[in-house]
This record gives sequence, C-alpha cells and structure tokens, in this order.
Amino acid sequence: MLGIYLDKVRSVRPVIHSITNYVTSGDCANMLIACGASPIMADEPEEVSEITSRCSGLNINMGTLNTAKIESMVIAGKRSNELGHPVVLDPVGVGGSRLRIDTAARLLGKVRFAAIKGNISEIKCLARGEGAFRGVDADGSDLYTGAGLEAAAGLAKELSAKTGAVVIITGPVDIATGPGGTYFIYNGHPMMSSVSGTGCQLSAMTAAFIAASPNEPLNAAAAAVCAMGLAGETAHVRLTERDGNASYRNYMIDAVWNMTSDQLEKGARYEIR
Amino acid sequence: MLGIYLDKVRSVRPVIHSITNYVTSGDCANMLIACGASPIMADEPEEVSEITSRCSGLNINMGTLNTAKIESMVIAGKRSNELGHPVVLDPVGVGGSRLRIDTAARLLGKVRFAAIKGNISEIKCLARGEGAFRGVDADGSDLYTGAGLEAAAGLAKELSAKTGAVVIITGPVDIATGPGGTYFIYNGHPMMSSVSGTGCQLSAMTAAFIAASPNEPLNAAAAAVCAMGLAGETAHVRLTERDGNASYRNYMIDAVWNMTSDQLEKGARYEIR
Amino acid sequence: MLGIYLDKVRSVRPVIHSITNYVTSGDCANMLIACGASPIMADEPEEVSEITSRCSGLNINMGTLNTAKIESMVIAGKRSNELGHPVVLDPVGVGGSRLRIDTAARLLGKVRFAAIKGNISEIKCLARGEGAFRGVDADGSDLYTGAGLEAAAGLAKELSAKTGAVVIITGPVDIATGPGGTYFIYNGHPMMSSVSGTGCQLSAMTAAFIAASPNEPLNAAAAAVCAMGLAGETAHVRLTERDGNASYRNYMIDAVWNMTSDQLEKGARYEIR
Repeated sequence: MLGIYLDKVRSVRPVIHSITNYVTSGDCANMLIACGASPIMADEPEEVSEITSRCSGLNINMGTLNTAKIESMVIAGKRSNELGHPVVLDPVGVGGSRLRIDTAARLLGKVRFAAIKGNISEIKCLARGEGAFRGVDADGSDLYTGAGLEAAAGLAKELSAKTGAVVIITGPVDIATGPGGTYFIYNGHPMMSSVSGTGCQLSAMTAAFIAASPNEPLNAAAAAVCAMGLAGETAHVRLTERDGNASYRNYMIDAVWNMTSDQLEKGARYEIR
Repeated sequence: MLGIYLDKVRSVRPVIHSITNYVTSGDCANMLIACGASPIMADEPEEVSEITSRCSGLNINMGTLNTAKIESMVIAGKRSNELGHPVVLDPVGVGGSRLRIDTAARLLGKVRFAAIKGNISEIKCLARGEGAFRGVDADGSDLYTGAGLEAAAGLAKELSAKTGAVVIITGPVDIATGPGGTYFIYNGHPMMSSVSGTGCQLSAMTAAFIAASPNEPLNAAAAAVCAMGLAGETAHVRLTERDGNASYRNYMIDAVWNMTSDQLEKGARYEIR
Repeated sequence: MLGIYLDKVRSVRPVIHSITNYVTSGDCANMLIACGASPIMADEPEEVSEITSRCSGLNINMGTLNTAKIESMVIAGKRSNELGHPVVLDPVGVGGSRLRIDTAARLLGKVRFAAIKGNISEIKCLARGEGAFRGVDADGSDLYTGAGLEAAAGLAKELSAKTGAVVIITGPVDIATGPGGTYFIYNGHPMMSSVSGTGCQLSAMTAAFIAASPNEPLNAAAAAVCAMGLAGETAHVRLTERDGNASYRNYMIDAVWNMTSDQLEKGARYEIR
C-alpha cells in the first residue's frame, strides 16, 4: 500500500524548503533529489517567507541552530501554515541546551506541524520535558525494546495528541503515529546510525512525501520511514569488506534513487496497530 | 584547442576564494582541487578583503545567502576588481526572492564580473528582470530547444553586453558568450541535474580556469564548461546498476581529477558561432 | 603501543563538540563516528557552554570563521577548561588574515589547549608570528625535508613549551611533540592533501583520542596522527584507475571505520626522539 506514496513524490516533484544545519545539508539535498523532490536551502529571515511561498513543503531541522535561523524558522513556519504547506520538525539534540528546548517550545507554540521526527530522547523531551542527551544520537538508556516499545508508542501518541502532528520515533523499531493509527516499522539496519545525518535525511524525505500526498500525512510519513529503512537495508547488502560508513552514506542515497514503488511496496515491513 | 586551459590550471594552481553556500561547499572545494586549483572558503566581512588579496580569483555564489555574506561579496568583489583578479557570479535561485534580486543588482552595480553562470531562469532574471522559479533548478518551462536555443543565446549576449562578462547558460546545450564569440557546448548528461551543486562546482571551476588564463576569459570559461560536461559523461559511463546520484557525485569529481588535457581536447564537443 | 588508544576511543565513545567550518563538517562528523566517537556540531554563543558541558572533548577549527563563532570558541573553550575536557585547536589558514591571527592569539590567551594541529605555515605563524600563506594548504616553500625537519620539530617544541599543548605539524613527515617527547610519524600519502578537510578530520579525531585517554595526550595524539596516515595509505591502495580525490575521501573514512587496533599497532610507523 505504501509504494504509491513514492510514485506520488516522483510525479508531483515537490520543491522542499529546508532550514537546516550545515553539517548534513548536502546529503539532505541529494536525498531529496533521490526520492524525486527538489531541494532549496535558505535561512535568512529577510527572504524565507518568499522562498517558502514558492515551495510546497517546509523542513525545519534544529541542528547548528543560531538566532537568525530561529527567526527564519518561525517566519517560514507561519507562512507555510497560511499557505497550507506541510511543515516537518526535526528537533535535533533538543535536550542538549536551554536554547534548543526554548526554540522547540516556541516553534510548537507558533507553527502547526504536519510531522515531528526524533529519536526517543528528543520526542521524550518534547512530550514531557525530560530525556537524556548523548550527542545528537539517542541515549543508550533510552533505547526501547519489548515493553519499552509500547511506552515509546505512548509517548509518540501523547505528542501527536498535543500537536496534531504525525509523530515519528526512530529506533530499533520505528514508530509513526497520528490520527488514523500507529505504524510499527521494522525496516532499517543498525549501521544507519553510523552515518551522520540519516535522521536529517529522513525528515527531509518526510516533508517531500507529505507535500506530495498532503491529505494522507500518516501514510505518507510511514512510507518515507519505510523507504529510508529499506535504503539502509539495500545499501548494507551492497557493502564490501573495505567499505565503511562513508560508502554506506553514498549507497543509501543511491538506494533511494534506484528504489521503485514496487520494491518499496514489497520491502516495507510494518504493522498497523 | 580547449585542452590547454586545463593544463594552465594545473601549472598555475590558482588559489580561488569562494563566498558560497554551505550546502555544496565541500564538493566545490574538492572539485577545485580535482581540476588543479586550491580552495579557500571565507565569508566574514572583517577578513574577506585580506583573504581575497592573497588569492588569484573569486567565486561568488548566492546560495544560502545572508546579510553578512552579502557585505562580504561586495567587499571582496571590489577588492578583487582593484587587484585585477577575475570574479565569477553564480546567481543561485535569483528569481526566488526580492533579497536575491536586489543582491544580484547590487553586485552587478558594484563589481565587474569576468563571468556570470546560471540556468536560463537565472540569466533571464538578471538580463530582463523576469523568469520563473523552481527550487534552485531551472523551471521546466524555461528549458530551451530548437528555436529556444537561439533565444537563450540572445539573452546571454544581452547580459554579456550589459556587464562585459562572459555569460554562461547551462542547460541541454550549454552556452558561453562574450567578446569574441559564442560557444554552443554539447557535452554533459541529463543526470547531472540530479546532483545538488553541479552548477556550483562549475562556477568554482570557471573561476579557476579564468584565473589561470586571465587574458582569455571566454575560451577559459568554455573549457571549464566542457570539462564539467565531459566529467558528467565519463562519470555516467562508470555507473553500475546499483549506483545513483550519490555515487555519480563522486564519479564526476573523480573524472575531473583524472581528466588529461588531451582527453578534454578530444572530448570537448562544441561549435563557435 | 599505539593501538590501545583506538581501542580506548571505541570503548569510551566520547562525544566531541566541534565548532568548525561548514565546508568539511560533514566529513568530520563521519570520521568521528568511524573512529568510535560521537559528533555534535554547535556554534551559537547562547548554547555552546551547555552543549560542551554535555560532551567530553572540544574541537575548535578556525575555517569559515565569523564573529559569532569566535565568541562561541572562547566561551566553549573556557567552559571545557573548567570541566577538564581536552580542547584541540586547528588554526586553519591562520596567516591569511588579521582576524585569524587575532583570533588565534585570543584563543591561546584565554583557553588552555590539550593539542594544537596545523601545517608548518600555521604553526610557524602561531609560534613566531611569521609564515607564508597559500589557501588553506601549507605554502610549498614551507615544506620541510632533511634539515628542515629538525627546524620544524624545533618550532613545534617552541609552541608546545609556550602553551603546554601537544603540538602536531602535518607534512611529508608528521610531528607530534609535548611533555614526554617528540614523535616523527611516517604514515600517510601525498594524495591526502588532495582531499579538502583531511586536516580538519585529523583535528576532530585528535580530540576524540585525547578525550578517551586524557592522561596521555601525547600518545593519544600520535595515535590519531598514525591512524589518519594509515587510513590514507589503506585508501590509496584501494584506488582504481577511475577513482580520484572524491572516492579517496570516502575510502579514508571507510579505512578508519574498518581499522582494528591491531592494524594500527602494526601499521603505525614512527620514531620517538
């Protein structure tokens, strides 16, 4: 059922405006192209309202935050809301500083998000104001398994109910929840966390998938998560013994570039509960 | 005839100062090295005059624009003009916002450019204040073929006459025009537009080629365009069925790294009219 | 003897805060992951004190400097000193502008560095206020051989005595000196200088190695230098005739990802004098 959302991206070819960190922006741009969308990165407060008006989706990523960028996020987010463009939030490292916590709170107060994607630490921080911090990765103690998975889904639902957004938690099992149900997604490979920016790439893709299917944000977001995870699997199969995380980075983008809707359809592994 | 300009870059080894976007700057740096030049990126107004004085060419790229960077572009551009260093302008996404349109106008008013490179939308915007906008890529409706090619060349000549710069329009056929004639260049591959930053890389290379052959800006610019297009062809031949746009990105830089002047000489496909 | 320091990084898994340039930050992040550390990039003055407090090492890189970043470097550097976290300085292109010279002086006056890494031009500039400038690479005239090697080691010792830091000079032979002795390191390959950011990656790795073995900064730094050089050798062997500097970039990171402590132990080539 999810293959059609990839087809949609490739037929609509949405232009996605990203206000994002400088560390992984190049990979996000190429991943957007790989899935069929078109990227534009711009973060100057003076121009973001116009830029976002000419796009059809907005991706807000809190990495390498600065005060000018925060203004831009608010301006572009509000403008996108006026225009009915979907807005995605990636609250990178939100537990790491007061500035990030305040910025996330300000954004959640002023902008209506179509989707929010984070690891369990980040989502916990947004939902409850708690959560550990380990770089921009999930804290090990936050990794959920078994009973923890239900607790994680509970957190995601809590944040979804509060914000109206589809909430995605990435981890050993990915969760995507929103009005309409909860996906538990089994795609992916542990090595994905060894590439800086796979989470950022997923947020960008999620914006593209929802922009192409704006009336089905939950299914579109789940399709993006499955596509990213499937790319992680496909890329992992391709690794030779001399390849490492740098080649893996390229192979994942390549895998999305080559992914057909049929492959996504067959390769997506999930339950809806 | 164009192979010698690549040799020139490799013997002169010009240091190119780029004031550029953060999305593709790493690839631009590596492409500059691949062709034989040496990169330095710096965009703080306080230091750009000194930095550019120690280089031999300046590359101004309007992606991820911000107000500090605009100051730096003006300062460095004027200083480069004083020193007789060639300056290249890449008006990324110029039709996308008032800020970009004003910045381009301000730069064209204060800085003398050796070359200006854009897609048809961007060049149309600079030459006539019109043009559509689709992300940072050319709008589909702007793609020229047949009679459109002559119209595009006309636009390029118009902007060249107005500015004194060599004007490059990238597209299915690339155009490079300036005092001395007009090149129609047939190198390249459609997949090049699937890699974020190939245009930025070409601008950087153009600065390097002109800095190494400052008295022949048109031929040097045409050689850079042919080299980039030939790299796109060479890299495309190398693609396996599992490769996609990420590997293609690497292969293009690799292709320039391995390109000999003899290969450029034989591989360049163009007409001068 | 140096293999254990790589093992240490992989068992401690230090989170390294980098205040760094936007050109090579993605590669630095992936290199940190490749060696076993975890990256976070953040450069907003408002948050860097908190961010660095949650990490265990700080990497300050002066590329694409700006005034806000300089404040952040001072704030984070002082905070790291208070907490006893090692701080590494990479004075990129320090001879290139008054701003960079002043920034380096300010940092050396306010922050205690565990290690300082530069090419001979940069270290000469810090030690004596002299030195040529060629982009962000060492000036050719500064390259040392034979008797020049002893002079370079003398410079490194001078700066080390002045600052208390381990001082690393990269070049045909790498030098790492500090209280405890001087390493002359023969690993590496000339092609490493054809990849933008190998120096930045080494600084980031040095911060990770010292953060994991804080009581042995000289040995840990030497291990990082050997690991980087060995990666350059391993990656070079892997190059096919169509590969160039872009593939080489990936292969070096891949090589660190796959490097075992045993390989580092056997592959490290150095003398302590």
